[in-house]
Amino acid sequence: MALHPVVLCGGSGTRLWPASRPGRPKQFLPLTGPLSSFQETLVRLRGLGAETPVIVTGAAMTEQTWVQARAVGIEPMVLIEPEPRNSGPAAAAAAAFIRDLDAEGVILLLAADHHVGEPGKFCKAAALAAQAAAAGRIVTFGVKPDRPATGYGYIQPGERLGEGVFAVQAFVEKPDLETAKRYVAEGRLWNSGNFAFRADVLLDEMAAFEPQLAKAAEEAVREARRDGGTVCLDPAAFARAPGKSIDYAVMEHTKRAAVVMADFTWSDLGAWPAIRDAGTADGEGNVVTGDAQLVDVKNSLIRTDGPLVAAIGVEGLAIIVDGDSILVCPLDRAEEVKGIAERLKAEGR
Amino acid sequence: MALHPVVLCGGSGTRLWPASRPGRPKQFLPLTGPLSSFQETLVRLRGLGAETPVIVTGAAMTEQTWVQARAVGIEPMVLIEPEPRNSGPAAAAAAAFIRDLDAEGVILLLAADHHVGEPGKFCKAAALAAQAAAAGRIVTFGVKPDRPATGYGYIQPGERLGEGVFAVQAFVEKPDLETAKRYVAEGRLWNSGNFAFRADVLLDEMAAFEPQLAKAAEEAVREARRDGGTVCLDPAAFARAPGKSIDYAVMEHTKRAAVVMADFTWSDLGAWPAIRDAGTADGEGNVVTGDAQLVDVKNSLIRTDGPLVAAIGVEGLAIIVDGDSILVCPLDRAEEVKGIAERLKAEGR
Repeated sequence: MALHPVVLCGGSGTRLWPASRPGRPKQFLPLTGPLSSFQETLVRLRGLGAETPVIVTGAAMTEQTWVQARAVGIEPMVLIEPEPRNSGPAAAAAAAFIRDLDAEGVILLLAADHHVGEPGKFCKAAALAAQAAAAGRIVTFGVKPDRPATGYGYIQPGERLGEGVFAVQAFVEKPDLETAKRYVAEGRLWNSGNFAFRADVLLDEMAAFEPQLAKAAEEAVREARRDGGTVCLDPAAFARAPGKSIDYAVMEHTKRAAVVMADFTWSDLGAWPAIRDAGTADGEGNVVTGDAQLVDVKNSLIRTDGPLVAAIGVEGLAIIVDGDSILVCPLDRAEEVKGIAERLKAEGR
Repeated sequence: MALHPVVLCGGSGTRLWPASRPGRPKQFLPLTGPLSSFQETLVRLRGLGAETPVIVTGAAMTEQTWVQARAVGIEPMVLIEPEPRNSGPAAAAAAAFIRDLDAEGVILLLAADHHVGEPGKFCKAAALAAQAAAAGRIVTFGVKPDRPATGYGYIQPGERLGEGVFAVQAFVEKPDLETAKRYVAEGRLWNSGNFAFRADVLLDEMAAFEPQLAKAAEEAVREARRDGGTVCLDPAAFARAPGKSIDYAVMEHTKRAAVVMADFTWSDLGAWPAIRDAGTADGEGNVVTGDAQLVDVKNSLIRTDGPLVAAIGVEGLAIIVDGDSILVCPLDRAEEVKGIAERLKAEGR
């Protein structure tokens, strides 16, 4: 069984402004160390003995993708989405592309913007997931929740299928807060947004639940333009794929879902508090990147790409200096950055 | 009676870091509007029909002094202090210089780094002070305290001498906090650090209480090098003047002290909270200079010389962006900036 990593690298977050900007999305930023999360994802794969990674990204990000992959010594295949259409079409197109190379191939579908604390544990979980996938399962990586987040899918594990692998008894994408609280109390798991499946299995399930999506994605690969390691999916075909996530398109419906326990530290680096949590704190709980002078500062995130930041007497604050912009905001209100980033974009700045 | 304005412009504050730096002291910064406080001081004098202003400053600040004075259409005389020796020697040297020009001249001695809200009221008070000074008094401008500050001198007004002018019954420089609280309760006034006196009267009092200072200052003027509008005080003579403030050297001892009520808004722009108080606040109490996006921000001071500052959910905070440095600190702890400025200086930054 060959394992084909597919890395979804087309995201464009606004919640990490001013570090993330249009054209410089978070997966390419060194947020938790010297490497970007995209690079960390590629490096993490080294422990798996996998095939050439396939990166799915947008045309505007192709150059960054190549530069960052080569900087960590990896020569990937790059599938270019003509337009962003959510994770369903991207996953289906990658599956169609891999199936043509390897009819029995197992895909390990990974997000490019996640942080994993222990790569060794990740590889062990990925190997278990790949085994279950080879047997026909669509395997998710379940993370133990530490809060009733409403932005994730929740998995209820059922029957044990093998070592560390369970059938999925229920899968609910993005519940409301009350439901999320109940799910956490019941021991349901977050869907981390990483998957393992056989290419043909995913395409069969797509064809069953989202036939138009499956057909459009397969056609986008068939009609693709190829140039060395770059594959440009056919724009007309890809545009016909409904813009659904893999979760809504397949996971909420399939009977083949399984879950592997992700016992590694996991973060989707969704907003500034997650960046602080994934970093190394000083004795006062501050995570500092760049030139800073702190006096009586606690539990704060200070990032500067150049200027000196002097902070006195603040707690739980994010101070982010990036290029021509500076953000100052309590970490527990960092989600509101999205509004500012969107307003600036609307103003053409 | 001719009125000779003398502006003391040699200060070098550290409490307005990062705006004030070595070589760019606060009197030259546009802190409350488009003009610096030095320029505001010169412009304020226009209402008085006074003689050519005499500026006392350090050699390193001569060029800024000329540039800023000429930018508001004023061609001053500039007295250069060979080294900073506090306000006593500067005032005595200016008095000796003016006495040589005009034996009966009255000096209006002003700090270059103060903000006055109502220039018209200032001119009226200055005219009253000049009258009392012509009659032999050393006149201070007394400000009604709004808090028990320990950094000012406190004046107890006594006998009424004329319209708006009182003898000084007691003068105490920089009391401790308990004493300051008592003084505020008793209705004592702050000494604003601006004065009116006849040149000969100040020199007589200096000679009586600080003979070495008076002698050194007079000799520094006698031996000065003159070059157009610039007068370089003699370094050797000036170095022999004890480095005392005019308050400790004369005001605590003289029997000639008088006080004019300063009924104008006054601020010595001593630290960031004073800059906020002197500025024009928006409906949320924020004083903003430069490019900012504020969401739920209250009673804060935001200043940026270029980069966009985005702030969310903070209150009573100073965010100051100036060149290569950024300060974030609660306004009520802004005095601690001094420690950071001094540490950076010690590190040679």
